[in-house]
Order: sequence, then structure tokens, then C-alpha cells
Amino acid sequence: MNKKPKTAITPTRAEDYPEWYQQVIRAADLAETSPVRGCMVIKPWGYALWENMQRVLDRKFKQTGHQNAYFPLFIPMSFLEKEAQHVEGFAKECAVVTHHRLEPDPETGGLRPAGPLEEPLIVRPTSETIIGAMYSKWVQSYRDLPIKINQWANVVRWEMRTRLFLRTAEFLWQEGHTVHATKEEALEETYRMLDVYADFAENWMAMPVIRGEKTPLERFPGADITVSIEAMMQDRKALQAGTSHFLGQNFSQAQEIRFQDQNGQMAYAWTTSWGVSTRLIGAMIMTHADDDGMVVPPRLAPSHVVILPIYRDEQSRVQVLEYCNSLQQEIAGKVYAGRAIEVEIDDRDLRGGEKKWYHVKRGVPLRVEVGPKDIAGQAVFVARRDTGQQQSLPRAQFVEQLPQMLDAIQQNLYDRALAMQREHTHEITNEADFRALFTPKNPDRPEIHGGFAVAYFASEEALQPLLNELKVTIRCIPLEGNDQPGVCFYTGQPAQRRAVFAKAY
Amino acid sequence: MNKKPKTAITPTRAEDYPEWYQQVIRAADLAETSPVRGCMVIKPWGYALWENMQRVLDRKFKQTGHQNAYFPLFIPMSFLEKEAQHVEGFAKECAVVTHHRLEPDPETGGLRPAGPLEEPLIVRPTSETIIGAMYSKWVQSYRDLPIKINQWANVVRWEMRTRLFLRTAEFLWQEGHTVHATKEEALEETYRMLDVYADFAENWMAMPVIRGEKTPLERFPGADITVSIEAMMQDRKALQAGTSHFLGQNFSQAQEIRFQDQNGQMAYAWTTSWGVSTRLIGAMIMTHADDDGMVVPPRLAPSHVVILPIYRDEQSRVQVLEYCNSLQQEIAGKVYAGRAIEVEIDDRDLRGGEKKWYHVKRGVPLRVEVGPKDIAGQAVFVARRDTGQQQSLPRAQFVEQLPQMLDAIQQNLYDRALAMQREHTHEITNEADFRALFTPKNPDRPEIHGGFAVAYFASEEALQPLLNELKVTIRCIPLEGNDQPGVCFYTGQPAQRRAVFAKAY
Repeated sequence: MNKKPKTAITPTRAEDYPEWYQQVIRAADLAETSPVRGCMVIKPWGYALWENMQRVLDRKFKQTGHQNAYFPLFIPMSFLEKEAQHVEGFAKECAVVTHHRLEPDPETGGLRPAGPLEEPLIVRPTSETIIGAMYSKWVQSYRDLPIKINQWANVVRWEMRTRLFLRTAEFLWQEGHTVHATKEEALEETYRMLDVYADFAENWMAMPVIRGEKTPLERFPGADITVSIEAMMQDRKALQAGTSHFLGQNFSQAQEIRFQDQNGQMAYAWTTSWGVSTRLIGAMIMTHADDDGMVVPPRLAPSHVVILPIYRDEQSRVQVLEYCNSLQQEIAGKVYAGRAIEVEIDDRDLRGGEKKWYHVKRGVPLRVEVGPKDIAGQAVFVARRDTGQQQSLPRAQFVEQLPQMLDAIQQNLYDRALAMQREHTHEITNEADFRALFTPKNPDRPEIHGGFAVAYFASEEALQPLLNELKVTIRCIPLEGNDQPGVCFYTGQPAQRRAVFAKAY
Repeated sequence: MNKKPKTAITPTRAEDYPEWYQQVIRAADLAETSPVRGCMVIKPWGYALWENMQRVLDRKFKQTGHQNAYFPLFIPMSFLEKEAQHVEGFAKECAVVTHHRLEPDPETGGLRPAGPLEEPLIVRPTSETIIGAMYSKWVQSYRDLPIKINQWANVVRWEMRTRLFLRTAEFLWQEGHTVHATKEEALEETYRMLDVYADFAENWMAMPVIRGEKTPLERFPGADITVSIEAMMQDRKALQAGTSHFLGQNFSQAQEIRFQDQNGQMAYAWTTSWGVSTRLIGAMIMTHADDDGMVVPPRLAPSHVVILPIYRDEQSRVQVLEYCNSLQQEIAGKVYAGRAIEVEIDDRDLRGGEKKWYHVKRGVPLRVEVGPKDIAGQAVFVARRDTGQQQSLPRAQFVEQLPQMLDAIQQNLYDRALAMQREHTHEITNEADFRALFTPKNPDRPEIHGGFAVAYFASEEALQPLLNELKVTIRCIPLEGNDQPGVCFYTGQPAQRRAVFAKAY
């Protein structure tokens, strides 16, 4: 009989990847569905990840010259009517406010909407139109430019099929909106923010990404150029983890963002927008979590270390807790990645095994167990979440080496994600190989197969039937790498550009 | 001819207080109205104040054992139908989402709402009902308690008459929601959070407050006890700056938040909620700003110091900027109130007077001017925003004493606000004095008059006609001070309690 190793998460990634994802979120207590259709509740451990992401990103935004501000939740319907292409992309599925009051309903004994609005209000799916309306008032002269503002906010898009963190009706995000006097400056901003996102993904989330440009059919509605970072999840699908848009003069023309230039001429401004969202938490889960639950990269961990006191009686309890407290204080004075190291002591009245697995499932980078024997030897028992490696270390050595141990974990997570991405990225030169890559070997288990195809293509339009058939999309034209001309894998025609193709979230 | 001193804000506080308030917000560029009825745009300087408030409060919440989380923006209408008293208070004026799509309107050529929802959704005016629905799932056993969660969020209340920061349809706030096994613990939490708010108001905002309990008619809808902090604005009106509610078992019964206690018995939990909002920015303005604009308390200032380089030609420009940069770097290494001191250099191409007044109006605590003469003497010219005091100081002395100077400003702001509150707080023992206090001496200039009346009262109900006539409310029964019985100022009956009465925002 084949006995498979016991895992904390059922099913495993190999058995049923989508269900594994839901179970990791449940086991790590990151979020759950709410009674409001499509809206999630982000629970404390999940929200703490978001707070850490926010803190790091916010610092990067400020370092690149941006300020935060806050704009209204609601957008008048007429604003969406102005920018046809944008509306086509965004305004279709959204939450529409039509009334401003509730009154008793004599028929049901309950309540009913009353006080109809003259003009319906849309709960922002993104804020280009309302922020643009303000910018058109603020921008008069070249002296008012650039405007570089970011907003942390909630947005709503009425999604029919939702999945925690990846696609929900309401989600949290940041949206940067900038206005520039010249095309060059707006382009520079667009790519600068892409680099900020790529740096954040790779150096903080330990998630390798491909920076690239979207093809016309995949662009943000209303953008001239959309660039994105794309990451490979463990089921080999792509996840778009951040986007930055060069909006040209499209929005400034629709919204009259005009300024008097240095020669006294009126000119339309150039705008950009860029954003990342709580979707990044989904990306973090699908990049690092394993069959035992969540694995949190140390640089974004709400707790870096959890200490589990182990004792049998009241006498050893006092001694062990004292040792744990002094260890916690000693560690808490140390700094890792610009932040004080966070240490929890879990002294709850639970069985040792239950407690251990609780923190494994939450993904705390290092677990430390302390019992009377460890104290006698001035030692600690240390387990790494990423590798499962366990060892007894002299206390002083553990404390001293802690920042390096956390760095080693961070690096290992990045390295193994990069190895996975490289292993499953294939140069494709013909349709047969393309079809083979994106066709599940076992049709009953479609979850884990495929990967990234890197291939020359001649015409995005011509590819659509094939892509639709295989449920594959063009993720991006990578900014780095081979830019020699080649031959289209599909039509055999000469092709100027290579794209990354993948199934995607 | 009487020439009045020139002020940066027109009108002055004495001339037209409400208009002065609007003009300070405009001059300091804190916020402005938006095209969305009742919704404001919080501009970077105003938002930076909010970020600083958030950071300090968030730390206090975490130090008192709370975690952050995030709950849905929308509340199903049926949830509001469950808690009659709460609905009566909140659900009347709110934003109601009734559709989830926009479609082309053939009649107008524009858009129209489509996809009617089966059940209307309310944009949260406060989150007791939706959070309570989650808590009822999370709470099973006494082991699950307490739950101590805070949420930073936007909320919407459809206000007819709005005023920036003080009363807007959408505003930003935090709402804490806790669940406890015992009444005692929930009461303790209620008062603990009131103390957190009072500490924040007094020691960070430099705004003296009175902590007290609301009378039954002034309570939060659904609360057994509401306590608040009340501050006196410069027009002598009261502003409720934070509230903490002991909700008893009202919400836990409506929402079935039940748990098995240590004896195996099922019991309803005890809940609390507490919140402060961007209204605090309004309170800060009306406590500290003067006829020259905003005055920001140093402990919450986005910039503590602004350096204005003063030069005539290119040669002195280089020298002056170099000096300013080195001064900035020297200062930026120093810490005040747990945060690196923030220094801006304003090298914009503006006239010196214009630039100076720009920062006076924004309320930066210290303005430093540096010209060739200062450099020659290794000195700086320093102006305090709060007192207007100006002096030339040796550079080294200025740098060394900077934290103390900021502390002196913080203390002075608090002291003068407290002196104002004390000067205009009156013990009242009879109706005539009460009427006199709350009747404008000049009916054409009703803005600045009155103050706080501290008076014994026997019956809240009996007072209503008088209070309505004078547009006065009972702000609170102060927690501190005289608790001897006395005589009702209105009826002459024996009275157990003294209240603070005031006109209020």
C-alpha cells in the first residue's frame, strides 16, 4: 500500500489546486467570504500582510515624489459617459447607487429604498474620471505640473465568479494618478512605477516577475500603453500583479486637463495611472504556500518568529516562560529589513502538536520551541517554515544569526520561485508545441500543467481563435531579453516581437 | 480712520467664523468640495495630517491589544431591519445600491442602471451589523473571546447640509468592534478606548477635552452607554471628537453572538464599538488655526520645519542652497516625538513674501529663512508659527534645541486652548444665566458667543423645550469633577448630576 505523507492541507496542490488555495486561506485564517455577495472579509493575519505591503509600497511612492490624497467613493454616471472606451471596459458591471434613503415598507413591515437620486452614482471601479475632474480644476499653468498623487482606497467591480483575494466585488488597492507637461515625462513615470512594482515583487514578496508591455487587445481601457508585471503561480498560470498605464492625452482631452505652457500656449496634459491591490496576497499564497499551508516571506511577515513554551508542570512553566520572555525581549531589539523583528509567544492552553501546526499553517518564518532541556543547555530548538529544517542551536548564536536566517529564508523563497518559473518557461516555435504545452496531459486533472510560452507572433488578431480555444492569453511583450526579429510560431510569417503566453488568473 | 491689522485670512474669526473656517481650509489647501454632492476631496496636506493621526492611533490600538481587519463596504438591507433602534438612528439617510450594471440608454444616448439587485445594499454608515454577522460565526466558545478588532474605512451618511471635515456624506474613520464574555470586561474596554482618545486629543492634537457620558437622548442608537470626548472650538461651540459605546447585549441578541461559557452554558456576548474620524482635522483647525491660517501641532505635523533659501543672484544661490541642504540633513537626523524630524526646503521661484505666507497659511510649526548674511554669521532666522515670534539663532544652537522648540510650541498650543476652554466654561445655577450665556449679544453676529455651561439638571426630558429654543445640547455628564448632589438650574428640583451644555457641531 502506498502511504502518502501526511500534509496539513487537504487536498494537496497536486490533487486539486483551486481547492488547495481556498483551504490554505482557511487554514491560515487570512480571509473568508461574507454574507454580501462577492465581498470578502480580510481577517487580522491577512490584513497584517496587506499593512506590511502598504507600508513598504507607500515608502517607495513617497521616495519617488508622490503624495497621498483621497477622492470620493462615488462617480456621477455622467462622468462615465464622457470616456467611451473607458466605460466599455469598466462601467458595465458596477454597483449603482440610485436612492439616498430607506423608509418603512408598509407592505412587508421591513424597509425599502426611497429618495431617488437625480443622477445615479457609481461606486468607483477605478478613479480616473473623478480624479481627472479635480485635476482639470487644479491644472492651469505648467507651474502646476507635475501632479503626482496616490490614493489608498476600496473599489468595486461587480464580478460574477469570485475567488478570495484574486477576484472579489470589493477589493483594496492603491491607485496612482499623475499629470505631466510632456509625453516624455509621463512615459518615464509609467516605467518608473513599473520598476517600483517589480522591485517590490522581487525583493519584498520574493516573487520573480516579468516586466512587459500589454498588446493592444489586453490594454487598460483608455490607455495608450499598459505595462505590467507577470508572475508564475505554482499551477504554472500567470498572475498579473501590478499595472502601470501611459494614458497619453486620452483622459486629459475627455476631461479638459489643459495648461498654459511656458510659451503661453494652451496644451493638453499627459497622464498616467498605476495600481496594485489585495490580489497581491493571492499572488503571495500561490507563489510560496505549500501542502502544509501558508509560507510568508520574512520581509513582509507580521511575525518573524513564534516561540512555543513547552512544559509539563507549574514549576517548569514559570521557568520556561521566564526564559521565553527574556528571549523575546532580546530578539525584539534586533532589526531585519528596516523593521524591528516581531516575536510572538504562544502560551495558549493547547496541545503542543496543535499549536505547532497552527503556526505552520499560518506560515510564520521561524518557529522556536523552548523546554526545560533547552534551557539547561542554553539552547533553542529552531524550525524553518520554508524548508522544514529543524535544529538545536545555542541561544546566543540563534539570536546573533537571526537576521541572516531570515534573509536566507527570503532568498530561498525567491530562488525556488525563480527555478519554478524557469523550469516551466518554454521557447515555442510552432503551433504543435504550443498546443501540447497548453493541453492538460490528464484531462480529469486540468489544474497543474502548461507554463509560460515565449514565442514570436506576427498578429495579435490572427491568434485570437487559437488563444480562445486553448484559454490562453498574451501576458506581455517582455521588456528584457531577445529583441531580434523572428518567425511567427503560428503563421510562419516574419515577426518583430516575442510575447509571453499563458493561462492566467 | 481705524486701520485693522492685515491678516492672511479674510474674514477673520471675529468677523465671520464659519466663513473663516472655509477660508482656512482653502488657504492651507487641506481639502475641497467635489462634483459629487456632499463628498470632499482630501488634498495632500490634509491627508498627511490624517496619516499622522492614523499612525499614532493605530499604534495605541495595537498596544491595547487590538488587531486590524477589513469588512465589506455594503450591508444587506435585511441586516438593518433586525436592529430597530439602530436603524432608526442610522438607516434613514444612506446610499442605497439597487443595480449592478450600466447599459446604453437608447433614449438619451447615455447610460442607465440595469441588473436590479434582489436585495438592495446599503453603503455602510457604520459597521455594527455586518461585523456582528461575522462575529456570530466566529464566536462559539469562551475560548474565542475576547475579539478586539479595528477597521480603518470609509463610511457614508447622506447629509443634507455638509461642511468640509465636519459633516460630509463620505468620510474616513476607524471603527473598533469588540466582543467580550463579561459585562465588566466590555465596560472596561469602553472606558479604556475613551482614555485612548482623550490621550490622543490632549497629548498629540494639543486639544483639551472633557471626557463624559452621554445622556439617554444623546446616545448612539443601540448603545447602553455612550461616552465621548468633547472639545471647545474657538467659537466656543462644542465638538464631539470621539465616542466609545458599551452596547450591552443589544447587538449580540439581535445578531445571535452567543458562546458556551466555562460551565457549558450558552450566553450572549457583550459588545463595544468606538470610533474617530477625519472630523478630527476639523477639530484641529478650529482649535488652533488663527487669522493667518492653519496652525499644526508639531507632534502631528507632516513637516516640522520649512527652510526658505533667500538669495539675489546665481552665485549666492549656490552658496545658500548648499547651506540649506546641509542644514536639512543635519536636522533630519534628529527625532521628535518618536519620529524623524521632517524638513522641507522650498526653493520654488516665487517672491519671498508669497512663499513665506504660503507656509504660514499651511501652519508649518517653524519657518527658517537663510540668506548670505545668516551664512556669514553661521546663523538662521527662525519664526514660530504659533506665536509669530522671530529671532536669529546660532545655527548649532537651533539644531540642538529644535526638539525642545517643537515641544514648546506643542505645549503652548495646548495651554492656550485650555485657557480658552476654562475662560468660557461657566457654572450655571439658574435659567436666566443659562439663557444669557446662550443668547448672542449681537444678533447680527451670532458666531462667537456662549461657551460651556456646567449645570445641575434633574430631567433631560423636561429640559428639551429650553434646549431646543436655544439650540443647545447636553454634551455629556463629565466623568471627572464634582459629583455631589445639587439643585436643577431649570426646575429647582434636587438633581444628582451635572452636565456640560453647549451649542455643538
